[in-house]
This record gives sequence, C-alpha cells and structure tokens, in this order.
Amino acid sequence: MRETSLPSESEVLRFHAAEQHILSRIGAGEFPPGARLPSLRAVSRSLAVSLATASRAYLELERKGLIEARPRSGYFVRRGGRGLPEPRPAPARPAPPIAVNRSGLIAAALSAVGDASLLPLGVVCPSPEVLPGPLLARIMAGVLRRGEGRDLSYTPVPGLPGLRRQVAFLRQVAGEAVSPEDVLITAGAMEALYIALRVLTRPGDAVAIPTPTYYCFLQLLETLGVRAVEVRSHPGRGVDPADLADALDRHEVAACVLCPNFNNPDGSLMSEEAKAEVVRLLAERDIPLVEDDVYGDLPFGPSRPSTCKAHDRKGLVLSCSSFSKTLAPGWRVGWILPGRYMTEAMRMKSSTNVSTAAPVQMALAEFLSGGRFERHLKTLRQVNQRTLASLRHCLSAEFPEGARASDPQGGSHLWVELPPGGDGVDLFLKARAAGIGIVPGNVFSTRDEFRNFVRLSCGGLWTEKLRDGVRTLGRLAAEG
Amino acid sequence: MRETSLPSESEVLRFHAAEQHILSRIGAGEFPPGARLPSLRAVSRSLAVSLATASRAYLELERKGLIEARPRSGYFVRRGGRGLPEPRPAPARPAPPIAVNRSGLIAAALSAVGDASLLPLGVVCPSPEVLPGPLLARIMAGVLRRGEGRDLSYTPVPGLPGLRRQVAFLRQVAGEAVSPEDVLITAGAMEALYIALRVLTRPGDAVAIPTPTYYCFLQLLETLGVRAVEVRSHPGRGVDPADLADALDRHEVAACVLCPNFNNPDGSLMSEEAKAEVVRLLAERDIPLVEDDVYGDLPFGPSRPSTCKAHDRKGLVLSCSSFSKTLAPGWRVGWILPGRYMTEAMRMKSSTNVSTAAPVQMALAEFLSGGRFERHLKTLRQVNQRTLASLRHCLSAEFPEGARASDPQGGSHLWVELPPGGDGVDLFLKARAAGIGIVPGNVFSTRDEFRNFVRLSCGGLWTEKLRDGVRTLGRLAAEG
Repeated sequence: MRETSLPSESEVLRFHAAEQHILSRIGAGEFPPGARLPSLRAVSRSLAVSLATASRAYLELERKGLIEARPRSGYFVRRGGRGLPEPRPAPARPAPPIAVNRSGLIAAALSAVGDASLLPLGVVCPSPEVLPGPLLARIMAGVLRRGEGRDLSYTPVPGLPGLRRQVAFLRQVAGEAVSPEDVLITAGAMEALYIALRVLTRPGDAVAIPTPTYYCFLQLLETLGVRAVEVRSHPGRGVDPADLADALDRHEVAACVLCPNFNNPDGSLMSEEAKAEVVRLLAERDIPLVEDDVYGDLPFGPSRPSTCKAHDRKGLVLSCSSFSKTLAPGWRVGWILPGRYMTEAMRMKSSTNVSTAAPVQMALAEFLSGGRFERHLKTLRQVNQRTLASLRHCLSAEFPEGARASDPQGGSHLWVELPPGGDGVDLFLKARAAGIGIVPGNVFSTRDEFRNFVRLSCGGLWTEKLRDGVRTLGRLAAEG
Repeated sequence: MRETSLPSESEVLRFHAAEQHILSRIGAGEFPPGARLPSLRAVSRSLAVSLATASRAYLELERKGLIEARPRSGYFVRRGGRGLPEPRPAPARPAPPIAVNRSGLIAAALSAVGDASLLPLGVVCPSPEVLPGPLLARIMAGVLRRGEGRDLSYTPVPGLPGLRRQVAFLRQVAGEAVSPEDVLITAGAMEALYIALRVLTRPGDAVAIPTPTYYCFLQLLETLGVRAVEVRSHPGRGVDPADLADALDRHEVAACVLCPNFNNPDGSLMSEEAKAEVVRLLAERDIPLVEDDVYGDLPFGPSRPSTCKAHDRKGLVLSCSSFSKTLAPGWRVGWILPGRYMTEAMRMKSSTNVSTAAPVQMALAEFLSGGRFERHLKTLRQVNQRTLASLRHCLSAEFPEGARASDPQGGSHLWVELPPGGDGVDLFLKARAAGIGIVPGNVFSTRDEFRNFVRLSCGGLWTEKLRDGVRTLGRLAAEG
C-alpha cells in the first residue's frame, strides 16, 4: 500500500487543503447529509491535486465518521451518526436574584482580548482578513485630508449628524421606525449597554438576563451592583416568553436584557412571534427592554431577522448595536436607540466621555453612504457560514464522543457542551498554555451552570492552523 | 481734525489690527504696567500703517484706560487704574455634603459643544487652526496604510503598548515615576475621571471637590449619586490645604478631586508646597486623590508645573489627563494612572467600552515618538498666552466698571466676576441669542455660589470677531 511510506510535507499540506475544502462545502450545506460527494477524479481535477491526495482526503473524512463509502456508488455525507447534537439549556428551576461575582474568571478570559499570540478561537470578532481594511484606510485618509480639521473638534454629544443618519437608515432595514434624532453614537455596543443599564438601574436593583449571556454584561451588572434574574436560553430558540413572564411574576426587575438574534454565547435566534410576545409582556408591565443586536446583521439566511425594537410602540426598547462584528471592532463605534430615555442617555454619555472619537465617525459615515456596507455584509455572512461549518465539522471529528455543539443560523460563535464530566475551565487553562484562546462556559452565567461548556468563535477564514488548534483542543478535552 | 471724516472700512481694519497688535504685546507681558510703549513712528514702521492709524490705535487704548500719554514722553502702560482685579473666591463657610442637581443648566451649557454656529468663547479646547491637523492626518493615513489592518482589531483593554509607553515618558517630564504598565488609555480625561470615581465611590458617598469646579465633574457626581463636599478655590492659588484638612475633619469623604494646575474654571495654580501638603494630608487619612491635569502641559512660564502625583508614594493619587487640550479634542484620547487601583480601573474600562479606538491611539503613538509634541506645545502655549492677554485686555476695556477677571499663568480660560448685581445665567442666555457661546458661573458649583460669574475661554488666535463678541458681551453685561 502507498500509505506505508511517510508522506512529504507538501503532500500533507495538499491533502489537508483538499480535506478542508470538502469539509467546508459540506459545512456550507452544498452537500447535505445523505448527498453524494464528487468523484475522486472530479476532486482531483477541481483542486489540481493527484488522485492519491484526493483519496487520502476522503479516507480521512471517512475515518472521522463524517462521510461513508458505498461500494460502486462513491462517497456520501453520513446521516446522523457521529454528528453534534444541540447542547442542553440550563435546568428550568426558578432561582432568586443573585449578586454577580465573576470578576476573577472574566478578567482571565478578557486578557485574551488583543493578545495576538493566541490562536483566535476566543474573541467574537471578525479578523482583519475579512474586513475592508484598505478601503476604510483610504476613506479615513480622505475624510481627514478634506475635513479641514473637523476631526480635531468634539462632535456633538449624540454623535456626528451624518453618521446618525446612516445608522437610522440601517435600522429601518431591520424594520425599526427610527429617525436620526433617535440615534446616540457610542464607543461600541458595550458602551450602549452600559449607558442603558446606568440609565435604567440603581444599585440593588435586579435585571432579567438570559442564561447563558455575554460575560461582559455580567461584569457590568457586577460593577453596577445590580443583581441578575437569570432566565434560561435554549440554544435553538433563545428565551421562551413564558419563562420570562414567570420570572417577572416572581421578581421585581428594573429592566430586561436580551440578545434575540444569535445570542452570545449560545447562538440562539428568537422567533418573530417570541420577540413580539416579549415586547408585549414587558410593555404590559412597563419594564424597559435592553436589546443587544450586534449579530443581527449576520444571518446565514437571505433576510435579516427582525428585532424587538421593531415591535416597540412605547419607546420602552433600548436597542444597542455596533460595527464591531461587521466592520471595524477596533474603531469602537456603536449606537444606542434609547427610545424614551434619550435625555438620560445623553447625560450618561456626556459624563462618561463627552462624545465618540470624531475621525472614526467621519470615516464610517462616508463608508456607509456609498451602499458598500450591504455588499460587504453579503461576503462576510458567507465567510462566517463556511468557517463555522468547518469549525463544527472539525469539532465533530476531533472532539470526544458525547460532545454537543450549537448549530446557529448566524453569527460566528459556537456553544460547545463537553461530554459528561468535562470541565470548561480546565480546558480553557490547558488551551491557553497551548497558545489557544477559548472562553470557559461558566463565565456566561452567575451560578457555575455551564461548567462543562466552552465557547468557540472564529471570525476569519478557515485555516490549517485553526484546524490543528481544534484538534489539540479535542485531544485536551479527551484527556479530561 | 482728520477724525471728523468717517474712516473708510480698510482704515478701520488697519486701525483695529494695530490696536490689537499693541494689546496682545501688552498682554503677553512684553510691556508691563508702567513701561513705555514704542513711539508712533516705530509703530507706524513696524506695522506698515500710516502715522494717523498708529495714533488712532493709541488714542483708542487711551480712551479705554489701558495706556496713558505723558507730555513729551510718549505713551505708557497704565498701572492699576481701570485694570481687572482678581475675582473673589466663595465665602469660607463650612457646608454639609450636598446632593448634586445641576443637570438642566449643564445640559444647556453642553448643547454648545460641537455647535459651530456659536462664537467659541464657551468650550475650553484648542481650535483646529492652532493644531497640527494636516500632520496628524498624514500620520493617520500612514499608520492605517502600513498597519495591515491592526487598527481594525481591539487593542488590549489598557491600551496600545506603544501609546502607553509614550504617555509614561510624558509623565516622567511632569516628575512622576511611572512606567508604561501604570498607564490605562481612556476616551479622554473625562473617561479617566469617570473611571476613577466609579472605582472609588458608591452611591451616597461624599467626595471633596473645589468650588468652583468643572461642571462635567458635578454632572458625573450627580449621575453616580455621590454628594459633594465643596472646598473653596482661590483664583490665584487654588485650594488651600488648610481648608481641605478642615473639610476632611468635618466630613467623611471617599475621595478628593482636584485640578491643581490651572483649575477649570478659575485658572488657579497650586504651589509646589500646597501640592505636597495635600498629598501628605490625604495619605495620612488614606483618602485617594483624583488629580485632573489636563492643563498641566499649558503653562505660560518656561517650565511645566509639577503634579500631586509626583509627590505620591502610596499609589493613592489617580492622575487623569488627555490630549484634548493640546492636540486633538475630537480624537478622544486620554489616560488614567490609577496607582494602586489598576485592576479595578481595568474592570471599569472593559465593562464600559472594552478599549479606546485603535486608529487614534496608533496615530498619536506615532506622532509622539518623534519629539514633535514638545515643539507643538511651545507654540501652543505662546498662542494661548497672547490670546488670553488680548481677551483680558478686551474685557477690561469693554466690560462694565466693577468686573473682575482671573489672571491665570496657563490654560486658556478666564473666570470673570460681573459687577455686583450681574447675572451670569442672564448673560449666558442673552449671549447665546446673540450667537456667542459662554458658560454661566453657577454651573461650576452646587449652591448657586457663582451666580454673578461667567467663564470665557478661547482656544485659537485672537480675531476681530472675538473682539466684537466680547464687545457685545460687555454691552449685554452693562444692560444688566
């Protein structure tokens, strides 16, 4: 047999590349479970590799249980089999509001932000290779050159009028009836959330949040001295309005925070009906809703999911989002549509940092005015979908039996449940030692609920390096 | 007499220009009180104006009581006479801590920020004409072009390493023993103050602050639910350590906020000894000091004043500053040196907006690395000194008898006490209606202490328009 001789390095690279190519096409849905894969000859031709290399790639995928050979018929994508079932939600037991105390762990997780030495499976943000960096740089150079120093002066507290207008246009696409005067520009969605919670809460108040939820929200609650009423989120459909209603009946809350579109970390998407119902039941109780919509622009399907804000008739929904997941994380530009709380939100902005940096506002306003954003989003969604599919398939091949993973319809992160007995913190620490950034699951709740979970994210193109990283993670997870 | 015929417009312009030229040289200290001014012939030659124009300029200055003619000797700068005495500090009566409630007025004052339609006598910030805008724009274009998209990624929470290093170098010039690891980059000094107060206080706490103090600090205290213990500031020497000690003996405070170098609004400068004494007496009581040093780089004298931080041995001084008064207000880049509170400060930064915008950090790091900042500061200080001198002289000529004004040794703002019975809010409203931005004095304290004060500031070159604006203000102030 040819496989007895050790393959040369370039052969290995070619074979990996072929395997990944097939994997990503499976992941992208081109070949659904049960579908017939291209013949070895077709693969060899289309990828310009030898028949032997194509054959090795198929053998490897077969070994991992992802595809199967049927005599005289060729290769097929396996149905079910060694797939990745959906992770389980938190148990449905009502719990009293809890003081948040997650700082130590969160600080460790946050230390990965901006650390270029780690393999980037920990921070949910698009990597520069899939962003229009050179174009944004040229636009920035142009607006500063032509701006006659306007970038040097403070913009008005609520932001540059031209950018507020562009953001209002974007929100209209999401079905929200907003005008430029409803928009307050912030330093990213995190600042929008921060403004919303400072406007709505006092220390000692309680806030309803999904569990799991983005750990920075928990950190924010902790620094504000606000308690959490955790409502479980289902990896598929997000927060159930009935669960929320139940929590509101039991506890007095000052506000509710939700991420209805591709919740971080579980990737869940609430249905149109659930969104409408949540807005209705909160409005009935006069409880404001803080809506995090940072992933709303990143669906894999053809149309953008709607928002709770689109159902808001009372100005009770404070919608928060940014360009950090779509265009320029490091530019720190986001916004809040604070509804009836605009005056208070402006006061918080002015007493926090007066206004958002002018140069980045000017350049983004210019970029958005050209219809370029929609085209860029289209590409980015495709990249995210393919990469996430590859990541998911790689996980299913490399992670130990019993692992589960979310199968989100948008965004760029996976919520991974380790096999029973698995420890996310342990894996996080081992991964970091191996130069891989991931986030342990238990930082996403206050009660160690998700101790056997990790969040993996990938905001760039799928690479050999990432694949090797996931392989290492799988090995570390199997070690237990 | 020639003056009977109406002068042509260009003659009026020339005569105004000559008058302003002489005024600014007097203001800059070139001709101190009692000094002999150049002869009419010398003025005529050096400014290339007719003898008649030079004579009209001197007559106008004489009419305004700023200079005097002595027979057969020429013109001299008047001593005392119709000068501007120092404004009076708040009365020295101990007052209990007070809940801050200034939002309405402050919102009105803040509405002037970024409003280019108003004559800029209200916002303390350098105008683009005196800033290296084209150079900064070129540097920004270069760092983004060469940066390979690094600007698109989050910087680490505490900031770009290169910028933290440059800031540490700057602080060493101010006599502070800091290393890059002590620096946390923020979105302007306002965010630095905000981080400091969120780290140090809980709602209901009291904080010692000077009166008058920057109104955004009061707004911040108000939004945090923190009470103010006001310690009077003298327009000349700032807060007296004995007054502070007295306040600390009477009230429990969680922190103290001071702006020892050219306090906003009264421009006061605390002596080296007073700074050392304040640090000593706070350290003795283990009370942290939040030091606002945004004007410290803008002295008129040859050397930079030192800071309280330079005297700090216990890590109890949280030093806050920015590039907003020296380089690029709209870029929103500042820093905090949080001393022993770095961990808590990082937590606040990450749960507010994660990190400061990367492009502006990258460009500033590059600008600072070239030694250009020191040269720029030298020019800016001269501009500020001349403009403030012109503003001060214009005030003394145009404002009604009994007005007083601070005579700061740095910065770019004047603290103006109206004649008895004058009303700063009334003047603010009338000025705004006339298209002139100023700030009413009472927003700088919690107790309507400075009802007959206004703050005037001017961050650019002295112009006819500003002069006309001050003339209008003088007329409005005289109307009462």
